[in-house]
Amino acid sequence: MNITTEQMRFWSPAVRELEPYVPGEQPKIQNLLKLNTNENPYPPSPKVVEAVQKVLENSADALRLYPDPDASELKQAIAKQQQVPVEQVFVGNGSDEVLAHIFKAFFVQDLPLLYPDITYSFYPVYSQFFGVNTQVIPLNDNFEIVVDDYKQPNGGIIITNPNAPTSIDMGLAAIEEVLQANPNSVVVIDEAYVDFGAESAVSLVEKYENLVVCQTTSKSRSLAGLRVGFAIAQPHLIAALEAVKNSFNSYPMDRFAIAAAVASFEDQEYFEAQNQKVIASRETLVAQLAELGFKVLPSSANFIFASLPSKDAGELAAELRERGIIVRYFNKPRINQFLRITIGTDEQNQRLVDTLKNEILA
Amino acid sequence: MNITTEQMRFWSPAVRELEPYVPGEQPKIQNLLKLNTNENPYPPSPKVVEAVQKVLENSADALRLYPDPDASELKQAIAKQQQVPVEQVFVGNGSDEVLAHIFKAFFVQDLPLLYPDITYSFYPVYSQFFGVNTQVIPLNDNFEIVVDDYKQPNGGIIITNPNAPTSIDMGLAAIEEVLQANPNSVVVIDEAYVDFGAESAVSLVEKYENLVVCQTTSKSRSLAGLRVGFAIAQPHLIAALEAVKNSFNSYPMDRFAIAAAVASFEDQEYFEAQNQKVIASRETLVAQLAELGFKVLPSSANFIFASLPSKDAGELAAELRERGIIVRYFNKPRINQFLRITIGTDEQNQRLVDTLKNEILA
Repeated sequence: MNITTEQMRFWSPAVRELEPYVPGEQPKIQNLLKLNTNENPYPPSPKVVEAVQKVLENSADALRLYPDPDASELKQAIAKQQQVPVEQVFVGNGSDEVLAHIFKAFFVQDLPLLYPDITYSFYPVYSQFFGVNTQVIPLNDNFEIVVDDYKQPNGGIIITNPNAPTSIDMGLAAIEEVLQANPNSVVVIDEAYVDFGAESAVSLVEKYENLVVCQTTSKSRSLAGLRVGFAIAQPHLIAALEAVKNSFNSYPMDRFAIAAAVASFEDQEYFEAQNQKVIASRETLVAQLAELGFKVLPSSANFIFASLPSKDAGELAAELRERGIIVRYFNKPRINQFLRITIGTDEQNQRLVDTLKNEILA
Repeated sequence: MNITTEQMRFWSPAVRELEPYVPGEQPKIQNLLKLNTNENPYPPSPKVVEAVQKVLENSADALRLYPDPDASELKQAIAKQQQVPVEQVFVGNGSDEVLAHIFKAFFVQDLPLLYPDITYSFYPVYSQFFGVNTQVIPLNDNFEIVVDDYKQPNGGIIITNPNAPTSIDMGLAAIEEVLQANPNSVVVIDEAYVDFGAESAVSLVEKYENLVVCQTTSKSRSLAGLRVGFAIAQPHLIAALEAVKNSFNSYPMDRFAIAAAVASFEDQEYFEAQNQKVIASRETLVAQLAELGFKVLPSSANFIFASLPSKDAGELAAELRERGIIVRYFNKPRINQFLRITIGTDEQNQRLVDTLKNEILA
């Protein structure tokens, strides 16, 4: 909408300059194959349904009461699953909210926050929102993080691992090197996609007082519709996140979110089986796309980042869309010849491959 | 917990100074009469249960997909119920989140934000969090807002109406006077309790380009456990809130929250009947407490603010608590001889009155 200069006087001056994040679209078209926002193709654990049914007992009388502002039950379930003490767990309304609190809690410093040029595009948005100084570090030509670049003065570091949209995993040894080189900065490892084949840095939390690991239930737990994210860190860092959270919103987690996420964390078997299915489907899809001439970066995520030398990626995305398949295309420097494709079921992936093979590239 | 100076180096400097909000306690004791956080004594509309059941269909497959980041369906339901265009609706994860976004969007100005000395105690917390300059305006000796005090240079005004914890309603004529006196400031009317007998300022939104009205589903809709709040304002103000929201968290409303709140807004009959019950119970309780010697401020809310000249309020709160009844006591200047008591069912209120009459004041 158009806002006049006169109307703009009501806005806080800094808000007039904001460039908000634009999420992947959520179209409401029938029979669409939606491979654009890295959702899981399988439903959540059946225990989730039971847990929500329980909240609805007695005419949903539980809903008239505020939820536990601390979401203790959820923190305990996460602590158990992650094998950490409950004092090392923070929860929020999706990992996006957890990340927002992380930026405010740790990164508003004189020295700049470091992050890669190609990574989660919400980081520059949070930085602007909270007034965080930043220094963007280019990935190398293979789209990898170069550890030595993170050995310069800084007020914090945030790395997505596996990185997005590249899907590349940097490995725990490299993460430890970053942690050791920066004993006075908070290093955040954003592990939204870690459950699809990468090794989690949660195992390093006990050893490093400067480490925060952030995860989400949106991908590997099929709970994108629920909005539950969490962070694991030593208690002196969790305390900063709690101070920020309790200065913003006392009760961010509703009763359904708490109950459903607890049930998900308690069903380890379903979780592992489901992730293995996604990983197996990914390997099949990568092989099929390679046959069609795609170059696919090595993926440890539930998506792949692929380019086709013979065809413009923007055009390819448009042609897929005309055929009812949506993938994510970023019209940005360095990556505007790639498509980010979410791993679907084998049947869905086959539809993508067939459409490419028989219709677009035929 | 104790955080050492050395550990504190990891925190953003401003976060080290935060004094977070402390919500009313949510104890997990059996047979407790909980009259401390202004929850509704009745369950939500039965339609809420049906709506949530629908999200659970097909093994809750809907949960694997992100919700609509714009929560359009919910905005439409609110617009219809409030009789405003959908472009005038903003939604958030509880009215606490909506208020947080309001502070960031409008109140970070050179001139100070004005609000009463006795009001929602989250306002100073938001102000510190976002770096908002403030000037606190004392209520008069009857705990009323004096309109003339809000005719001085300012960078915004926020008024809770009915005010909390006083329960006193200032009336729309007085609100219009504040709006007219401040054509260059955003005036926010926080109407968390408006449905229990006060007149809403939503009817003024079309007329005043500087008005934002904030409401919640936590009280009058029995959905405290769900976390849904909203704001009504002209589109040039809604746009600022959207810019802030989309710089913080794209998907704050989960699928259950959207579906359940929509169902609640569509059941106007249940909503009105339930509020009338609470109002009737309030009038009975006020009369009974007056008989016991309490002075009760005139209430337009689902709580009352009462003092007993013959007894210290802190002691009274403690004695009620020993008998399984929790009310809210604020150990703060001017109001430390008052108790804030949530209106329960008639049976619950009778238990309070009987306990006072037969045990504490006998």
